[in-house]
Amino acid sequence: MTPFRVGLLGHGTVGGALHELIDARADAIEATTGMRPEISGVLTRSRGEFADIVERSDLVVELIGGLEPAREYILHAMRAGRHVVTANKQVLAEHGEELYEAAREAGVQLRFEAAVGGVVPVIRVIHETLAAAHIDRVHGIVNGTTNFILTEMTRTGMGYAEALAQAQELGFAEADPSDDVSGRDAAAKMAIIARLAFNARVTIDEVAYEGIERITADDIEYAKELGLSLKLLGTAERLDGGVSVRVHPAFLYGSHPLAAVNGSFNAVTIESPAITEITLSGPGAGGSQTASAVLGDVISAMIPPTTLPAPAVETPLVPDVRSAFYLSLEVADEPGVLAQVAEILGLQGVSVKSVVQKGLGEDARLAMVVHPVLESRFMAAVHLIGQLPFLRSAPRPIRVIEETFEE
Amino acid sequence: MTPFRVGLLGHGTVGGALHELIDARADAIEATTGMRPEISGVLTRSRGEFADIVERSDLVVELIGGLEPAREYILHAMRAGRHVVTANKQVLAEHGEELYEAAREAGVQLRFEAAVGGVVPVIRVIHETLAAAHIDRVHGIVNGTTNFILTEMTRTGMGYAEALAQAQELGFAEADPSDDVSGRDAAAKMAIIARLAFNARVTIDEVAYEGIERITADDIEYAKELGLSLKLLGTAERLDGGVSVRVHPAFLYGSHPLAAVNGSFNAVTIESPAITEITLSGPGAGGSQTASAVLGDVISAMIPPTTLPAPAVETPLVPDVRSAFYLSLEVADEPGVLAQVAEILGLQGVSVKSVVQKGLGEDARLAMVVHPVLESRFMAAVHLIGQLPFLRSAPRPIRVIEETFEE
Repeated sequence: MTPFRVGLLGHGTVGGALHELIDARADAIEATTGMRPEISGVLTRSRGEFADIVERSDLVVELIGGLEPAREYILHAMRAGRHVVTANKQVLAEHGEELYEAAREAGVQLRFEAAVGGVVPVIRVIHETLAAAHIDRVHGIVNGTTNFILTEMTRTGMGYAEALAQAQELGFAEADPSDDVSGRDAAAKMAIIARLAFNARVTIDEVAYEGIERITADDIEYAKELGLSLKLLGTAERLDGGVSVRVHPAFLYGSHPLAAVNGSFNAVTIESPAITEITLSGPGAGGSQTASAVLGDVISAMIPPTTLPAPAVETPLVPDVRSAFYLSLEVADEPGVLAQVAEILGLQGVSVKSVVQKGLGEDARLAMVVHPVLESRFMAAVHLIGQLPFLRSAPRPIRVIEETFEE
Repeated sequence: MTPFRVGLLGHGTVGGALHELIDARADAIEATTGMRPEISGVLTRSRGEFADIVERSDLVVELIGGLEPAREYILHAMRAGRHVVTANKQVLAEHGEELYEAAREAGVQLRFEAAVGGVVPVIRVIHETLAAAHIDRVHGIVNGTTNFILTEMTRTGMGYAEALAQAQELGFAEADPSDDVSGRDAAAKMAIIARLAFNARVTIDEVAYEGIERITADDIEYAKELGLSLKLLGTAERLDGGVSVRVHPAFLYGSHPLAAVNGSFNAVTIESPAITEITLSGPGAGGSQTASAVLGDVISAMIPPTTLPAPAVETPLVPDVRSAFYLSLEVADEPGVLAQVAEILGLQGVSVKSVVQKGLGEDARLAMVVHPVLESRFMAAVHLIGQLPFLRSAPRPIRVIEETFEE
């Protein structure tokens, strides 16, 4: 077993989740990379010694946040020949050039997917998928707290203060929410995105930003009348031979890909002539989401991203699965039809969720949705129903996907 | 200048677009990678010689499609030590294990982002971003032709045959559409996705698939009444210690992230406990989109995906940008108010798109949206409006994003 030693700076929510995730996935990672990740040291306020942890690590994960000592630690680790993965948007938005330059000089990797967009892989997509593309514009909802607040204001009609208090209660906003609600957090992320997308030196000081503190329930109500939805929107675009990077509340028409991104979700739309646009969406930063993004970066630093699937493991194919179904039946419009159909379904253990019946002259159409059931059971019922004398055409089942996502 | 020689097998729509894209982006790619991509040979039915092209290439792009001679060419090129990039879903869904194994033995890269999901980077996200994640399920709309047809049927109420004919006319369906409408194309893509997501050996023969040929306008109409939207859905999921991979028409509730994916777009939702889910969407395969995905793979094969932005190029920040605005004004409800506001806007060159006025006892609220205008002009008008004597509170402007996307 070849170990891959990961030093951890900071052990809060994300650090703790990363520690657990590495333990849980070490076998799988070893199978893919040939190396087994292990935590070689942890630095917190009360324990660990920085120089010692660097000494004993192949890669350092910086999860302290803020400017100092994060900047100093990252520089020191890289100059000592260690790869660095960070989730620290502030230090990248402020000191990015210095850090990128130091990584280049030291010949080490500096990865930072977790600094932007929660689990949404915007850095990787810009950097790799679109490596050859000329990107014109990136629009992003890159702050989950403000999107949660605006979504609640829109959904319930409540005012800003009330929605903020609720977000704080539910853990979607911090006790001091100013970095989020002022737009500054989003501005830092848009600065990092603009640097990558346009290869332009943009720091947070050059990003104009406005927050959501002035938004009223009335604004949202009136906007609804105009068919608009309100988001805190980051924009980075090429314009007149230069670039513009800004964050501000903005109304979007319903057809915009970001208009339906609700709750604490983040989403980014990347526009380029060759591809039209790509939209990426997913949960904003939470402990386990951020840890997952960090670990993706750690693995990419361990080995160049693999181009191949690992050798396959024998896995049985499951032949029969549960699904809800829609079933449409054209039948003669006579008494007892629904009863006979229902009886067959009942005997096969199929439970009906909803039915619509419509007369069509002498015939009728029954359209129903049934609760999830093993496909084989449902198809057996459909086969029997297909033999009923009053049926006017073959029954037509279509699967229904039941689950919806929490946002 | 270090050249990076790309041999091109096939020169149809995608090959032609790739050739153009490489020419257009060679400078940018050289700046990032230190190597300059150049087409070292092209094989078509009428010109070129395969062995000769392999000899003169560092990497071979296979765009012939189908099983043979594509399989043989890919194997031969890899055994000769060449990296391969392919957009060929058939050969991967049928002979994937053999090809992956050959790449491993030869120590070369085999990349195939363009084979699945158009420009949506599903392979890269599963392989890299989620390298450490335990993926539970992937849902995908991975065939643009069928999604276009179903969207048109839903939008207009037309029948399947008519919608297919229209898709053919507009170039969204081929003259022989059977591979698409039968679900077989989507099945091949889901087999490739399942292989990567679950590390399970899945070939297209093991994917159960149904197409959209039996779907009627009535099905869609009835489903609308039940609040459902109809998609040709690919599903790959872990189930009972095994996996299930299937493609079939399915109704989705409106809250499902794939329910709103319309037209020829592709989208994929990847579910994993650590991240909840990520949704990726973008245009389905078109010549330039596929070429862009291929080129992203070519660049990743040239150098391990870069972790750092290239040194920054001096780029001016544009201080003043055009935007549409929403403006909310609380005013005294007296004659001439709207006229004075309109006059100020007009003098600054601001053109009003829509206005809503509402009485609130002695006061009134004016909410308006104006056409795009330079921010400085609009803010100058807002400043002047803010000084009008009948204003009850400070004017509150919010930007409006005007553009909507063609799907």
